[in-house]
Amino acid sequence: MITETQVARFPELALDSGETLREVQVAYEGYGTLNEKKSNAILILHAFTGDAHAGGVDHDGKPGWWANMIGPGKAFDTDHYYVLCANVLGGCRGTTGPSSPDPATGKPYGMNFPVITIGDMVRLQHMLVESLGIRRLLAVVGGSMGGMQALEWAVSFPDAVFSSIPIAATARHSAQQIAFDEVGRQAILADPDFNGGDFYDGKAPARGLAVARMVGHITYMSDESMREKFGRRLRGREEFSFGFDVDFEVESYLRYRGSQFVGRFDANSYLYITKAMDYFDLTAGHPSLAASLERAHCKFLVISFTSDWLYPSYQSLEIVNALRSRNHDVTYCELTSNYGHDAFLVDVGEQTGILRGFLARCLREAEAAK
Amino acid sequence: MITETQVARFPELALDSGETLREVQVAYEGYGTLNEKKSNAILILHAFTGDAHAGGVDHDGKPGWWANMIGPGKAFDTDHYYVLCANVLGGCRGTTGPSSPDPATGKPYGMNFPVITIGDMVRLQHMLVESLGIRRLLAVVGGSMGGMQALEWAVSFPDAVFSSIPIAATARHSAQQIAFDEVGRQAILADPDFNGGDFYDGKAPARGLAVARMVGHITYMSDESMREKFGRRLRGREEFSFGFDVDFEVESYLRYRGSQFVGRFDANSYLYITKAMDYFDLTAGHPSLAASLERAHCKFLVISFTSDWLYPSYQSLEIVNALRSRNHDVTYCELTSNYGHDAFLVDVGEQTGILRGFLARCLREAEAAK
Repeated sequence: MITETQVARFPELALDSGETLREVQVAYEGYGTLNEKKSNAILILHAFTGDAHAGGVDHDGKPGWWANMIGPGKAFDTDHYYVLCANVLGGCRGTTGPSSPDPATGKPYGMNFPVITIGDMVRLQHMLVESLGIRRLLAVVGGSMGGMQALEWAVSFPDAVFSSIPIAATARHSAQQIAFDEVGRQAILADPDFNGGDFYDGKAPARGLAVARMVGHITYMSDESMREKFGRRLRGREEFSFGFDVDFEVESYLRYRGSQFVGRFDANSYLYITKAMDYFDLTAGHPSLAASLERAHCKFLVISFTSDWLYPSYQSLEIVNALRSRNHDVTYCELTSNYGHDAFLVDVGEQTGILRGFLARCLREAEAAK
Repeated sequence: MITETQVARFPELALDSGETLREVQVAYEGYGTLNEKKSNAILILHAFTGDAHAGGVDHDGKPGWWANMIGPGKAFDTDHYYVLCANVLGGCRGTTGPSSPDPATGKPYGMNFPVITIGDMVRLQHMLVESLGIRRLLAVVGGSMGGMQALEWAVSFPDAVFSSIPIAATARHSAQQIAFDEVGRQAILADPDFNGGDFYDGKAPARGLAVARMVGHITYMSDESMREKFGRRLRGREEFSFGFDVDFEVESYLRYRGSQFVGRFDANSYLYITKAMDYFDLTAGHPSLAASLERAHCKFLVISFTSDWLYPSYQSLEIVNALRSRNHDVTYCELTSNYGHDAFLVDVGEQTGILRGFLARCLREAEAAK
């Protein structure tokens, strides 16, 4: 399946900050076929540094970030469903973000880009979905920040979703999650090449961005998966260097991942998207999480992973318990995995069976309800 | 108790790297009175960024980093014991380290300082202890990196220790522990002010060092203690800033701790001491941890804390099980605490009772054995 990224354009987008973005575009990909009733659409919501290329392979042969989950016979079975994925607002992979030209000046926004929220991202996705003539999505589904969007969809556009599937997510960023994001931001801001966000004509803040990414990678893995993958193995040597070059495999891996990231991600997007995650709090303005979820009336499937310490299971359970306390239709699965937070991307065996069952039930019930 | 830091000097120190350091000095403090037999001495081993000022208050009124544990009636009861603490080799608080003058040039070593190990630190401590006429320490005790030193003492100088008390420690740095250290190092190395370690005449790499410290602070606390201390509380505002100034209390705390650290710690010491921790592996050259501990013949008290995810209890249990498998005299206590790795510094109530009991038994048995 060779995929093609498409672009939708909208004249403006009102933001939670009170500001309005002009000339907004969204990059998206679609897999499978939208049926005549437009009732089989699933919106995939990507995590922090993901993009619209979720499934298939692109013209360069690069597989989508969830290609192991999207396709005929897979979790998101393109023989049955039309699967859609859009790059988030604030991103740097085709959707309007800080590296996009500001229509007022023609130059990249940089830090003149307004601060955005998960709610803003979802509002733009809703505009895209409506522009495709889809009145109700069979499911909104995503891991990590994608799960936050799935929750936001359920409460912001309750009539436009039949089911919501937050995976390895939370209803609000915790102090520890904010802290890790803040370290990444400070690493970028500390890099002199950041230059107040105005670096598109010069050198990107590669060192700061690489350090931010290194911190991120540690939080995406588990203690156990790092031990299994690297242990204390040395990299290309039999004895300690007694210097500050790479000694351990794990050092080499982190340095590589950090430097590789710099080539594909924008430092300003890093700041803006982490800020959106930190601002995310479904309970804001409500007496409780349960109260905030009252607006929703879709079915929920909540998934978490045992070794995920960045978005631990107790945070998924808070969502589940709040939903149950108001008699929502919710299924919860805590899956056993050593992969930490990365499990939602790489440990797809059990996830596949659960998602296939849940989605088949949704399709059947959605058709029956008509 | 007003304390005075003293300095001992030694002509040279042979290092594990094969190099030799000339004109080495050690800063240390002592509390209580060494008895006539010199049999009541306890050596306190500090953690990563600690120093010799463990107990009492100094001339500026600053309490020692373990002042809540050292003194009459406290865990390390100065009515009974002579308590000693020395700044580690590679440090920046009076003991020879990369900021010390290289006797060959008169200028600070910087990155010409040789890479050191936990074994080197302990060898220098042993020289200090011998110079004070102490043939056998009643106990060597420390948390975190101090616990690694306590283990190293037990195997490197088995006849010089009656008991070893590693707290919140490990017998070898794991991939995750190495990874966090490597991120800190890369943050420092990425700062242009680092200048290859030669920054003593100019501007210190304050931004990189602050970022490194921020990462560290997250690992020292627990998810739960961060939630209790900060939650999602905003700092000095009622609404989000929709900007990149401080929004959350936890951001403010991390920035403050980062910037404060820069004033009291040397960036080169950060590199060298983390490297020493990463190199630490008691099993190196032995078929198993149990085999490596065969050299030891002291009593052990191993303590860990339930919410410590940086040096989790399973790592202490590895030590305990290895000791038990060779019939060593070992007591293990896992203490319940929400404070994460910081618990060994701040959650001293239960620790105090356990340490007092264990040390009293050691003193009694050491006297009886004579």
